[in-house]
Amino acid sequence: MIGIHSAREALKVRPKKIRELWLQIGADRHSELKEFIEVAKRANIKVRFQPDGQLDKIAANHQGVVLFVDESPEFDSSLIESGRDREKIILVALDQVTDPHNIGAVLRTAWLFGSKGLLVPKNRSGGLTPAAIKVASGGAEHVPLVAVDNLAQELTSLKDKGFWIYGLDAAAASPLQKTRFHERVVLVIGAEDKGLRSTTRNVCDELVAIPQIEPGASLNASVATAVALYEVIRQHDQAEQCSTLGSSADDQTP
Amino acid sequence: MIGIHSAREALKVRPKKIRELWLQIGADRHSELKEFIEVAKRANIKVRFQPDGQLDKIAANHQGVVLFVDESPEFDSSLIESGRDREKIILVALDQVTDPHNIGAVLRTAWLFGSKGLLVPKNRSGGLTPAAIKVASGGAEHVPLVAVDNLAQELTSLKDKGFWIYGLDAAAASPLQKTRFHERVVLVIGAEDKGLRSTTRNVCDELVAIPQIEPGASLNASVATAVALYEVIRQHDQAEQCSTLGSSADDQTP
Repeated sequence: MIGIHSAREALKVRPKKIRELWLQIGADRHSELKEFIEVAKRANIKVRFQPDGQLDKIAANHQGVVLFVDESPEFDSSLIESGRDREKIILVALDQVTDPHNIGAVLRTAWLFGSKGLLVPKNRSGGLTPAAIKVASGGAEHVPLVAVDNLAQELTSLKDKGFWIYGLDAAAASPLQKTRFHERVVLVIGAEDKGLRSTTRNVCDELVAIPQIEPGASLNASVATAVALYEVIRQHDQAEQCSTLGSSADDQTP
Repeated sequence: MIGIHSAREALKVRPKKIRELWLQIGADRHSELKEFIEVAKRANIKVRFQPDGQLDKIAANHQGVVLFVDESPEFDSSLIESGRDREKIILVALDQVTDPHNIGAVLRTAWLFGSKGLLVPKNRSGGLTPAAIKVASGGAEHVPLVAVDNLAQELTSLKDKGFWIYGLDAAAASPLQKTRFHERVVLVIGAEDKGLRSTTRNVCDELVAIPQIEPGASLNASVATAVALYEVIRQHDQAEQCSTLGSSADDQTP
């Protein structure tokens, strides 16, 4: 893992999973990195100072910080068990998105909008590269990246657990703002140029289009993810307020 | 201008403003670039084949295509004249955002969501660099980038013309989904790390927060722009449907 933002989040969230911290020689002159060293030492993490060239070997744009972490956070599979249908959960799935920058940006957005996991097909995704983790700016510490063998199969099994699968498709007839989202949601986002594979599209319960003025062009994958997540949250939030209002009305008697 | 997507859009939208098209030697073997040459020749644009090194001198990641264009599209200032208050217009302003990648991503999003212009402070923005134009993937051809001397002054003068200024601020009390947007809107987005300058914040009519679970972190500037634009469009669209319903009821008599 490289970069200041993602390393800070990892130190905060799961210091026990960190094996080693590498800092560029001279990095302890910077106040921001000084703080890192303090935190790492308190957590008994081994700190090594390395020449710039050593850090470059791990990945470019490291900002003087490389962190060796054991694993990505684990997906809480109890979340998807059925029988908890009333609980609101949003998962995101990416289809054919291979650019690490995009995957990182989606992780960041998914984190800040409270998504509980990001599904990607094992063989067709760029995975959690150092560049993706850096762009995620901490998101990779919070949103488990789940690489699955067969995305369509996985989505089908999520349907059995009470999830509704919404595929974003610029050509879809149903606009995002008119779609009624259920409590348990999987948003499936395709690659900017290629969209969703037909096997993926076929398992979706609904195909949804984000309104835009140029049908030929497409929004960036992380932007599309953000807009769709926002709409789902907006509706979930509204539903919650309605039910709260309803129950407070029921509870009028002291 | 570099890159296939942005060059294609420029050829389509304003071929008369193009002075020259440079292609990497051998590029005419690719079917996608062959089509370019045809279009350019029909539009009487001079086509030159250059070695890779020549194109690299203009900018990195050129994808074998460099286009020399005279200017960015002109801002239609009649749009902001007052007296047309009922007409819906959305402008976007960026404060302290200097990264060309971000400016390009905002242009792309602003285009696809129908914004009529992007305001940036002259001295504090990265401007329309080749990298920004490439990331905009055609957006730079449609959304005029207006560099202003003093952003706060410009926003104040837009207020006089009937615009309402909404500043995005993670710390604001008013959440995006509860904000009522007027017809004439300027969305002001700050840099991810620094937010809005206080001079900019002070001229805003309302400060608005995008709901997110981690107050310390911030959404990417183009993602924040997209989510806010979507919400404004959603409300405008809803208002339009209500007024259409109203007028069709009035028009019942044949």
